[in-house]
Amino acid sequence: MKTHRQIDVKNFESREGFIYRYQKLIKDVVIPYQYAVLHDQVEGVEKSHVVANFENAARAVRGEDVRDGFYGMVFQDSDAAKWIEAAAYSLATFPDPELEKKVDGLIDKIAAAQDEDGYLNTYFTIKDKEKRWTNLLEGHELYCAGHMMEAAVAYYETTGKDKLLKVMQKNAAHIYRHLVTEGHEGYPGHPEVELALMKLYRATGDQKCLELAKHFIDVRGVNRDFYKQEVEKRDWKVWGNDASDYDYQQSGKPVREQFDATGHSVRAVYLYTGMADLASETEDQELLAACKKLFESITDRRMYVTGGIGSTVLGEAFTVDYNLPNDTAYAETCASIGLMFFASRMLETEADSKYGDVMERAFYNTVLAGMQLDGKKFFYVNPLEVIPGVSGVAVTHKHDLPVRPGWYTCACCPPNVARCIASIGKYAYGENETTAYIHLFAEGKISFESGLVLECETGYPYEFKVAYRVIEGSGRVAIRRPDWSSKFGICINGVQVQEQCEKGYWYLDYVKEGDVIEVSLDDRVKKIYASSRVASDSGCAALQRGPLVYCVEGADNDGDVLALSYAEKGAAIAGEYDSALLGGTVMLTADGYRSQKSTSLYTYEKLKTDPCAIKAVPYYTWGNRGLGEMRVWLPEK
Amino acid sequence: MKTHRQIDVKNFESREGFIYRYQKLIKDVVIPYQYAVLHDQVEGVEKSHVVANFENAARAVRGEDVRDGFYGMVFQDSDAAKWIEAAAYSLATFPDPELEKKVDGLIDKIAAAQDEDGYLNTYFTIKDKEKRWTNLLEGHELYCAGHMMEAAVAYYETTGKDKLLKVMQKNAAHIYRHLVTEGHEGYPGHPEVELALMKLYRATGDQKCLELAKHFIDVRGVNRDFYKQEVEKRDWKVWGNDASDYDYQQSGKPVREQFDATGHSVRAVYLYTGMADLASETEDQELLAACKKLFESITDRRMYVTGGIGSTVLGEAFTVDYNLPNDTAYAETCASIGLMFFASRMLETEADSKYGDVMERAFYNTVLAGMQLDGKKFFYVNPLEVIPGVSGVAVTHKHDLPVRPGWYTCACCPPNVARCIASIGKYAYGENETTAYIHLFAEGKISFESGLVLECETGYPYEFKVAYRVIEGSGRVAIRRPDWSSKFGICINGVQVQEQCEKGYWYLDYVKEGDVIEVSLDDRVKKIYASSRVASDSGCAALQRGPLVYCVEGADNDGDVLALSYAEKGAAIAGEYDSALLGGTVMLTADGYRSQKSTSLYTYEKLKTDPCAIKAVPYYTWGNRGLGEMRVWLPEK
Repeated sequence: MKTHRQIDVKNFESREGFIYRYQKLIKDVVIPYQYAVLHDQVEGVEKSHVVANFENAARAVRGEDVRDGFYGMVFQDSDAAKWIEAAAYSLATFPDPELEKKVDGLIDKIAAAQDEDGYLNTYFTIKDKEKRWTNLLEGHELYCAGHMMEAAVAYYETTGKDKLLKVMQKNAAHIYRHLVTEGHEGYPGHPEVELALMKLYRATGDQKCLELAKHFIDVRGVNRDFYKQEVEKRDWKVWGNDASDYDYQQSGKPVREQFDATGHSVRAVYLYTGMADLASETEDQELLAACKKLFESITDRRMYVTGGIGSTVLGEAFTVDYNLPNDTAYAETCASIGLMFFASRMLETEADSKYGDVMERAFYNTVLAGMQLDGKKFFYVNPLEVIPGVSGVAVTHKHDLPVRPGWYTCACCPPNVARCIASIGKYAYGENETTAYIHLFAEGKISFESGLVLECETGYPYEFKVAYRVIEGSGRVAIRRPDWSSKFGICINGVQVQEQCEKGYWYLDYVKEGDVIEVSLDDRVKKIYASSRVASDSGCAALQRGPLVYCVEGADNDGDVLALSYAEKGAAIAGEYDSALLGGTVMLTADGYRSQKSTSLYTYEKLKTDPCAIKAVPYYTWGNRGLGEMRVWLPEK
Repeated sequence: MKTHRQIDVKNFESREGFIYRYQKLIKDVVIPYQYAVLHDQVEGVEKSHVVANFENAARAVRGEDVRDGFYGMVFQDSDAAKWIEAAAYSLATFPDPELEKKVDGLIDKIAAAQDEDGYLNTYFTIKDKEKRWTNLLEGHELYCAGHMMEAAVAYYETTGKDKLLKVMQKNAAHIYRHLVTEGHEGYPGHPEVELALMKLYRATGDQKCLELAKHFIDVRGVNRDFYKQEVEKRDWKVWGNDASDYDYQQSGKPVREQFDATGHSVRAVYLYTGMADLASETEDQELLAACKKLFESITDRRMYVTGGIGSTVLGEAFTVDYNLPNDTAYAETCASIGLMFFASRMLETEADSKYGDVMERAFYNTVLAGMQLDGKKFFYVNPLEVIPGVSGVAVTHKHDLPVRPGWYTCACCPPNVARCIASIGKYAYGENETTAYIHLFAEGKISFESGLVLECETGYPYEFKVAYRVIEGSGRVAIRRPDWSSKFGICINGVQVQEQCEKGYWYLDYVKEGDVIEVSLDDRVKKIYASSRVASDSGCAALQRGPLVYCVEGADNDGDVLALSYAEKGAAIAGEYDSALLGGTVMLTADGYRSQKSTSLYTYEKLKTDPCAIKAVPYYTWGNRGLGEMRVWLPEK
């Protein structure tokens, strides 16, 4: 049932434009910076020790005693993996022999840290080999393996180099031996290896990778007390996670019976991504049906308007339907990246624009907001309301930081953003034997396996004309109609095409070299409203222009956002592109009201309001101008 | 600087009317039920073991080994104390030899549990005498002592019996010896003994009680690391409270330098009550100045419109200014009772209506909401928004129960509500040599020490005429003008009196036997608005009629409250008294809108709204008709 697949990352070459600028930032700033961090070369930044861990693990493999040689979180290895993956994708757009040398060097160190039996994890190799595989609940061995598999596949895809690929095939074989052949019970505390094994399977054709992914998905939650039994068998712990929190670890039921998205939101969407990929690869209808329900659970009832997911810091988790607090949101950057992965795999099973809509919403809003515009600082947590003195301060809001801090002790989000942006082509474009799919509008050159080559020119997401020029080949093209675009027109060579839409895709049956496909999208600013079930957004509206959800910041509104409300019947909301503002953006101006200040906590007279112009900027740009109030939703009256 | 004092509880005799019905409920239902619980005589209710603990402690005092004879929380003794206090107050209105016999019996048991040296606490006496006074942070010895002192004073006040009073004087002497004479460092983890010692001082004239109260208030926070040092010295704990959480235990600074209400909200207001009482008793201007700032911190920036305080379950605590989430509120019943205590003591220092306003707001809304209308079940936590499926369910909302459960393991609130209602006369009326003060309008007979006797007749809080008939004596009367009453008139014998108001009190210089004072209050329903700093209430309004804040429940609104909003320019809001509804109440009907249902989480079109009549009931009556939505604040447009 795989209707089509992501394109290879190297088949999208971004050029000028919004996406290009982000990819360039990843190449110029993020990748070098993160490389330096991995090597502990950045002053004033908490020690990462990632590379040193691999070096020490290699010594341990050679029999040296380095028991004190590990530093960091139990999943510290994954930082190296995500960095390699990001670097690999970046190399596809920006060939760079120096960077490639660095990657090769790091891969050599990783390979040296692999045990003879294929085992690879610096925490356990350095600290205590005997503890291997005794703490799947917390140990992150399979999580780290998964990320390294993804890195290996990425680097192989873009460079053809297979050293890390072989290391990880050997590692997969080790895992298979331990958990399948030898029959040790268990499934990953933090899902990730499932989706990675699927990639490794496709890159190598190694059937055991597919089997192993299927194994992990099939056994999950069948013995829901596995973690409890595991805890009883060992005398050590990492943090002491609650083994009976089935929701947290998505282990309360077999996955085919899980219909509500629960628990740690990153774990959840990584798991669902693997499930969706396996379902489409193996034509598992029951599994796919569960994936559809889980996708709906998230996007119909548990997702912020910014594409953020995870309503609470407690367990970094989903809560319940329609519970979407703006100020205490968790909405981890990694979770929205994972949601893109999940949506992309679902899209492969069915070309339905709802999947692309979610991918686009998550990417242009929460994922991009995760990174400062200069690429130097990152948010884990992406609240939809920030109030200085409350956010980051109140005991209930400690996690909702009002400005991006530097590198974190747990550095999961920064390299995740890097790999996501560097590989955006995979999510933007898809293909099968007959059809080229356009899911997201990303400027650049796209080469499909069919021989069709398109060149995309657009000022998207700030302009709403997207031109695809057919450079080579011919064939069928499918273009997603975004949910926010009430107007949608397509011309080929200037001639309006009769609409032929199915599940939100406009199919152009035949385009050929020289053709110019012009897509016209809705350029009007829209107000967006939440269901009345979402208590936090009662009586409120947010602004959206194209795929960009807007927010209102103190910096543009006399420092006081809480006093503002939108006018229900205001004039059309508009704005002009300003290349000097926030890296180039459109600030919107909307009619609204500003409530006069009161010195009383409560008053029996409604405070007078004065008409005012409310200035809004895209959510992804928030928090780039110092401490201030921010709101996505404002009351409307 | 004590301008006047509370009246003796036995000098208010409630008769027919709202307060009477509540006091009758306390007598008929709450006191007998709680007595049975203390004696473990209620089937299906978690074992209390309170009385058994005293019996076992008496055995321990006699030298028997009963080390396993304690059950319950470390502060279990206080349940007995609060019950005696409630019973004592109730006896003032409802003489009842049977009840008095029960109290005497319980007091005998308590007296028998007192050690020869005056020590009295079943937890330590039963479990390990050696641990006495080694854990002021968590041990609640001073807290339990304080409640028992309050009980002793109350029972002495209403019956003249002094057995418990003597027990507690001896106990106070023991505490004085240990902490003052012998100079052991320390101050109470949970403040309470300070306010109780002030009462004990006034009841007995024992100067050492005053000194001891002053000692605890003076040393608090001077060595802010006292608890940390204490933890280091012992090898046991109760829960392992964080000794360095200065906010939680109000110990970060000397109390005269504390200006923001912080930490555990019940502890906070109990402390401030003791401080205010000491300040006025000793004319300590610096201490009073701190109390004023703390009172403002609470009521100007950290109090719900219902008089609830404590914005978070984390530490059952205050958070930061203007952070007043409705759905995750803690707003513990006990905290609002404590706020009444604090306001009442502040009122004694200065006859300013703002203190009475807060007392009235807390009492008629949060305190009464704490108890089910039948007196059988109680809320600890009093949220201002309840959504079935979220409240009590989501991990962030576990504490916000949508319906009142039965007796709790930690049974602090139910007996606290009982003693508060049973003694409401003390808060309603005050006096000094020249003036009789009317703070709250409570129907019944009030006998002032001056010989002035008033009889109050009113349908308050549902009717807004309050008549005071002078039965005996003559003198000056001061009547509080409530903040919500924009109209306020007084007639004596049918003749309008010229207004003579000072700080919200209308002074009648001379009334005499036979005079009838008629107070006319504003009978109009008002909308109330929060400052724009309160993010949770942006764009919203609540309804208030008299002192009663209203809420909107699903039961009256087709089960769907989230879809409702008030019309900014609707017709006057009104309602009729219905004696059959919720124990007799006025349901209000307000013009508003109901948003049509959407199947989408987000829509680009505003959902159509239909005009509708919104029904609201007093907040204190909420949750008496099963599971349903509830909101105090609704958007207004």
